[in-house]
Amino acid sequence: MADLKSKFLQVYSVLKSELLEDPAFEFTNDSRQWVERMMDYNVPGGKLNRGLSVIDSYQLLQEGRELTEDEIFLASALGWCIEWLQAFFLVLDDIMDGSHTRRGQPCWFRLPKVGMIAVNDGVVLRNHIPRILRKHFREKPYYVDLLDLFNEVEFQTASGQMIDLITTIQGEKDLSKYSLSIHRRIVQYKTAYYSFYLSVACALLMSGEELENHIDVKNLLIEMGIYFQVQDDYLDCYGNPETIDRNRH
Amino acid sequence: MADLKSKFLQVYSVLKSELLEDPAFEFTNDSRQWVERMMDYNVPGGKLNRGLSVIDSYQLLQEGRELTEDEIFLASALGWCIEWLQAFFLVLDDIMDGSHTRRGQPCWFRLPKVGMIAVNDGVVLRNHIPRILRKHFREKPYYVDLLDLFNEVEFQTASGQMIDLITTIQGEKDLSKYSLSIHRRIVQYKTAYYSFYLSVACALLMSGEELENHIDVKNLLIEMGIYFQVQDDYLDCYGNPETIDRNRH
Repeated sequence: MADLKSKFLQVYSVLKSELLEDPAFEFTNDSRQWVERMMDYNVPGGKLNRGLSVIDSYQLLQEGRELTEDEIFLASALGWCIEWLQAFFLVLDDIMDGSHTRRGQPCWFRLPKVGMIAVNDGVVLRNHIPRILRKHFREKPYYVDLLDLFNEVEFQTASGQMIDLITTIQGEKDLSKYSLSIHRRIVQYKTAYYSFYLSVACALLMSGEELENHIDVKNLLIEMGIYFQVQDDYLDCYGNPETIDRNRH
Repeated sequence: MADLKSKFLQVYSVLKSELLEDPAFEFTNDSRQWVERMMDYNVPGGKLNRGLSVIDSYQLLQEGRELTEDEIFLASALGWCIEWLQAFFLVLDDIMDGSHTRRGQPCWFRLPKVGMIAVNDGVVLRNHIPRILRKHFREKPYYVDLLDLFNEVEFQTASGQMIDLITTIQGEKDLSKYSLSIHRRIVQYKTAYYSFYLSVACALLMSGEELENHIDVKNLLIEMGIYFQVQDDYLDCYGNPETIDRNRH
């Protein structure tokens, strides 16, 4: 497992180098350095659970058969796409929430010289995902399903974030607007799809499965995601900060 | 032509209704109203040249044959995807630039109750594009090429925006950083691809063409886009505000 994580981290370096030499854009030296610093600051610093879980899920779906180097690379690349998606959302969330720190360091937009450029940096991070998918999966039979999957999950996450944001404004005046059924929608859409379903769905596609044949798996993972987020919110509110890990995202 | 524009505007209403009933997300009444108001405020208020140009280009590629209702709808839907892409970029650009007005009204983020929620609203607008494409083009042989095209052009636009933003910071200290070759890269990437190439590329794909066979067309449109943006910047700087149209975007 320690070995798997070090392989996963090596794949990050490969993907980063490819993105910094992407022929679709003519980088200047300054812009290449900016993107490199921005990626290193925002993408790899979390627990990497979502990303690593693509490899774990794919391994389980292969029923113990040893994976080839190529399979490990591809599953890791998909895992990194999820980490990139998370980085995109976190960079923008910190701006919207006016946060100060993230993962034990100042939020990206708080750094001198960054400021509101961070909005576009978030967009650039999000745009890296289709660049990675195109470079490594364009010839795979499941390429179009991967694009559809990432698009749908991003749409759901942004929509969940939207009801969270607008309910918070309205809840300032009237707490009864913050009902249990709205809370369920918020946590389901803003967290469960990208944090629980997406990794397993990526592994299923890589295994040649059709996602429509695994609706039960999806429903189960969404329930797990809702449970996770409710627990997370409860601990944020009532947990002892010295017991819970404050850098857990 | 007036008729074409009214048909184009009708398609907006259809696409909007579909997005407000998207089964991938469980809207609350409040969130449905929020998205409707946000779309109406940001998407249709420009000149619509980019969107209308998809229908014009497709008509020309059919060499005068009368288009079917279905073809007009599909070309309009692609045109609207470009208008949505533009709305996404404008909503975020206004935040980054600290602008006050856009198209003769206050910028979206300046409205009471909106503020920084506008960052997520921009992301929601961007996410509408793949929803529209999936609903209307999923079964077309060129569906995957459409997804790749929109992804590549968005990446180029965000990357052009990035060198513009970081060069502006550095140029504050040292104007020599703002060279002709950097200026060419900025206007090419942040404007030309989405404003000139994208419409024609959509029409080519709808006509069953492979984009790789039309590199000359792409190069020509990029040159036109660079010329347009240089002229636009020149007029912003030296033009008579009473002569030039200040709401031209």
